[in-house]
Amino acid sequence: MTNTQLTHVQIDNYGPWTVTPEPRREVDLQTLQSRLYADLSQLFGNRGGYVFFTRFDNMIAVSNGLTIEDHAMIQESVGNRYPVTMSLSVATGTTPAAALETATEQLQEAGSAQDKSRREVLEGRHIDTEFRTDEDVQIAHFDVVDATGKYTDKLSEFDTFIQIEQGYAALMKYMREAHEGLSFFVGGDNVIAVCPDMDAADYQDVVEHVHDDVGVELQVGVGRGSLAEEAGMAAKHALESSRANGTDVEVDF
Amino acid sequence: MTNTQLTHVQIDNYGPWTVTPEPRREVDLQTLQSRLYADLSQLFGNRGGYVFFTRFDNMIAVSNGLTIEDHAMIQESVGNRYPVTMSLSVATGTTPAAALETATEQLQEAGSAQDKSRREVLEGRHIDTEFRTDEDVQIAHFDVVDATGKYTDKLSEFDTFIQIEQGYAALMKYMREAHEGLSFFVGGDNVIAVCPDMDAADYQDVVEHVHDDVGVELQVGVGRGSLAEEAGMAAKHALESSRANGTDVEVDF
Amino acid sequence: MTNTQLTHVQIDNYGPWTVTPEPRREVDLQTLQSRLYADLSQLFGNRGGYVFFTRFDNMIAVSNGLTIEDHAMIQESVGNRYPVTMSLSVATGTTPAAALETATEQLQEAGSAQDKSRREVLEGRHIDTEFRTDEDVQIAHFDVVDATGKYTDKLSEFDTFIQIEQGYAALMKYMREAHEGLSFFVGGDNVIAVCPDMDAADYQDVVEHVHDDVGVELQVGVGRGSLAEEAGMAAKHALESSRANGTDVEVDF
Amino acid sequence: MTNTQLTHVQIDNYGPWTVTPEPRREVDLQTLQSRLYADLSQLFGNRGGYVFFTRFDNMIAVSNGLTIEDHAMIQESVGNRYPVTMSLSVATGTTPAAALETATEQLQEAGSAQDKSRREVLEGRHIDTEFRTDEDVQIAHFDVVDATGKYTDKLSEFDTFIQIEQGYAALMKYMREAHEGLSFFVGGDNVIAVCPDMDAADYQDVVEHVHDDVGVELQVGVGRGSLAEEAGMAAKHALESSRANGTDVEVDF
Repeated sequence: MTNTQLTHVQIDNYGPWTVTPEPRREVDLQTLQSRLYADLSQLFGNRGGYVFFTRFDNMIAVSNGLTIEDHAMIQESVGNRYPVTMSLSVATGTTPAAALETATEQLQEAGSAQDKSRREVLEGRHIDTEFRTDEDVQIAHFDVVDATGKYTDKLSEFDTFIQIEQGYAALMKYMREAHEGLSFFVGGDNVIAVCPDMDAADYQDVVEHVHDDVGVELQVGVGRGSLAEEAGMAAKHALESSRANGTDVEVDF
Repeated sequence: MTNTQLTHVQIDNYGPWTVTPEPRREVDLQTLQSRLYADLSQLFGNRGGYVFFTRFDNMIAVSNGLTIEDHAMIQESVGNRYPVTMSLSVATGTTPAAALETATEQLQEAGSAQDKSRREVLEGRHIDTEFRTDEDVQIAHFDVVDATGKYTDKLSEFDTFIQIEQGYAALMKYMREAHEGLSFFVGGDNVIAVCPDMDAADYQDVVEHVHDDVGVELQVGVGRGSLAEEAGMAAKHALESSRANGTDVEVDF
Repeated sequence: MTNTQLTHVQIDNYGPWTVTPEPRREVDLQTLQSRLYADLSQLFGNRGGYVFFTRFDNMIAVSNGLTIEDHAMIQESVGNRYPVTMSLSVATGTTPAAALETATEQLQEAGSAQDKSRREVLEGRHIDTEFRTDEDVQIAHFDVVDATGKYTDKLSEFDTFIQIEQGYAALMKYMREAHEGLSFFVGGDNVIAVCPDMDAADYQDVVEHVHDDVGVELQVGVGRGSLAEEAGMAAKHALESSRANGTDVEVDF
Repeated sequence: MTNTQLTHVQIDNYGPWTVTPEPRREVDLQTLQSRLYADLSQLFGNRGGYVFFTRFDNMIAVSNGLTIEDHAMIQESVGNRYPVTMSLSVATGTTPAAALETATEQLQEAGSAQDKSRREVLEGRHIDTEFRTDEDVQIAHFDVVDATGKYTDKLSEFDTFIQIEQGYAALMKYMREAHEGLSFFVGGDNVIAVCPDMDAADYQDVVEHVHDDVGVELQVGVGRGSLAEEAGMAAKHALESSRANGTDVEVDF
């Protein structure tokens, strides 16, 4: 059984801020968003967590191992260094999708994403130490088979990107609907998914579904751990095996 | 007639680097990638250009107004501050898609994205000052009608993201295939497209296509200029009009 | 009794790198150095430590509460994201000056700062949990009495800076020689000192010495804790009392 | 004749902000300050300017080649991305010290550094293109003869730092008083000075004064240009000659 702890990160009232008093320079918004993401990657990451940029104004973190106090420190540190603040909501559930649903609901109950007076909400609970196990987090690391040879070195970069993007769109939808897993594009031809308790056959099914749906050929390595970092690193090593062995799926447990 | 100057940015031999001698910590890769993107946003942006993160290891910039010398300085500055280097290829064309095709081809001819010895390639030519006009760049700024009310404040963040992502996947594919324009997700519910000479009816067609295809309702503001920044800022103001007037398309020219 | 754990951070072979194959652009070196310092501030800081920029290519951290494993992670993370690597050496001692002396010696024994083959050394030991106490770290936060009214709003910025700088030069020398404390300029008119077990009379003596020596009037707040962050925050609050009460020295223990 | 254009950068009302409503975490302040400096290094630097961190809340830039419009863009970009704003004041003068005096006075006339309502002041004028020459900026790059052998590899890092710091304190004071030049510590054992029209004998005098005063042995390379970057790069190359030739002073003009 997995027991994923997810954190929904939401910049407070961000949309209105970006156009007040007038639309702000796009390059500054892009810089702000990507640096905030980089900072959260370090702040969560150096405690063993993972953050995904998702929509940048809303991000999703796998936060097993981080306490509410850790979240409060991260929230304060961002508030000290950015012109915007952020709200955080933490939850667990029987699947990653269920955990996130709770996390988002807690935030929605506290007010709208564009509520002027809702600032720096911190909701939810972390998993108590006594309930944590080495199987809490399952992470799958997907990439595209020979993306460089088939796409990057052959097509225009945008046409390569279309292939990767259509593959991702198919994968993220199917993983969510068929398995309650959450999949995130992380650059290049890589997708990292936070999964419930899935086995090799389940992943084989996912790889085949994406191939049938949009013609993109994936391979995947899967790992487990008490923290995202452990599970994710095991998944990376499993993916290396998958590349070396020419297999579709390698599961490290 | 538009005359978009595009730059294909490619980190040299990045994939192999990320797993040598062993897979590197994912949070460090995410930090590296997003900070590099933030830096390029400033370096191109403070000369009037726009950069899009695309796949992070490959990025696309609208570089009208930047010379090859500017590109060389950007390349050197990144080489001085990152553990990786990047190659740059600059081109123009009758449409954004055609310009990028040329840019990518120039890079492919210089060697593979995973060629160990191809480093800091700088290919192509900028548009000479005498040939630049106020209509060189056309930018469209799309967002989703009432995304906060319909999605962010109602669904789980991942389910909201699925809506935005499916909308983007449909839009980027159709814009590319029907109009030779290049569309980039830039966070929240926003997509910025670099377009050929399209008129209001063309944009209306795009908005309707996406709605018919995946049920996501878009609105769009369009602007023009000699630089991405001017065209993009005009597009933002046009989008504000679109929001205020409840129209699908507002074109500022 | 204090028991300060200090870490000497040294960029490996940095001087030669800055001029190889030719001198690198100064603005890039400045950017690299200050961002590395910012990153270390977060990496040490989010575990309760403090880092001081000192000479930027050599930095000094108060690392009570950080284990050798934490140091290894910080070293790896920097190695993943910068074009340079760094060596770390950890030590304790009866005074901050003695601790640092040991830390530096450990590094010197491993090779020269400009040794081409000495890379990512990690030397020393952290304090075992059982030996840690609430009085391990003593921090003093100095600032200049009415610096804005006396200097910033009256003199040219460089002449203000001369006053602050001469005050700092006198303070850091005297603290080192008379008390074995290490004092670091941290911006504005602020100096943070890592101190051995000093009492209010000792600080009064320091304030008077600096005034007599260079005519700069200081005030100081002093705090204690098991971590730099706790001691430093207590010192900040004590300094606020000093400002409110018009006293030279406020000690929070 | 030099014609240095200097910009005084001042964070608006920064001191009070750092303690409102309570003292903010020191590591966040350090991160904010050093990242702001890094950003300004890039923003000024990529137009050929140099910025020095000075006191971090007050910085000094050599801004020859940057217009008031460039300054306005830099000011806006920082305002979009930081929780603080900054005021800028630009001036020229017969010496660097005189130029800065004017720049600071313009700022002081607009209000106190701790004035709550003085925000984003932009004062002064840039040098018109027709009056710019290749001798406008003279930069001297000093370092300590064999600092690694004499200090870094021998003394504790703080004792090395005392030597460098005392050398810098003597140099910056003498350069200001005897020659109206402004000298800035830039890390390691390096000091960069913005100078009026000084010749080799003047620099020889400075080197000897510092040696007599505090016993620190310096060498210096000097360059000239229309921009700080050109003058500074020429100075770096001259300093390389000084190292190679074992001379105290090398002047590249």
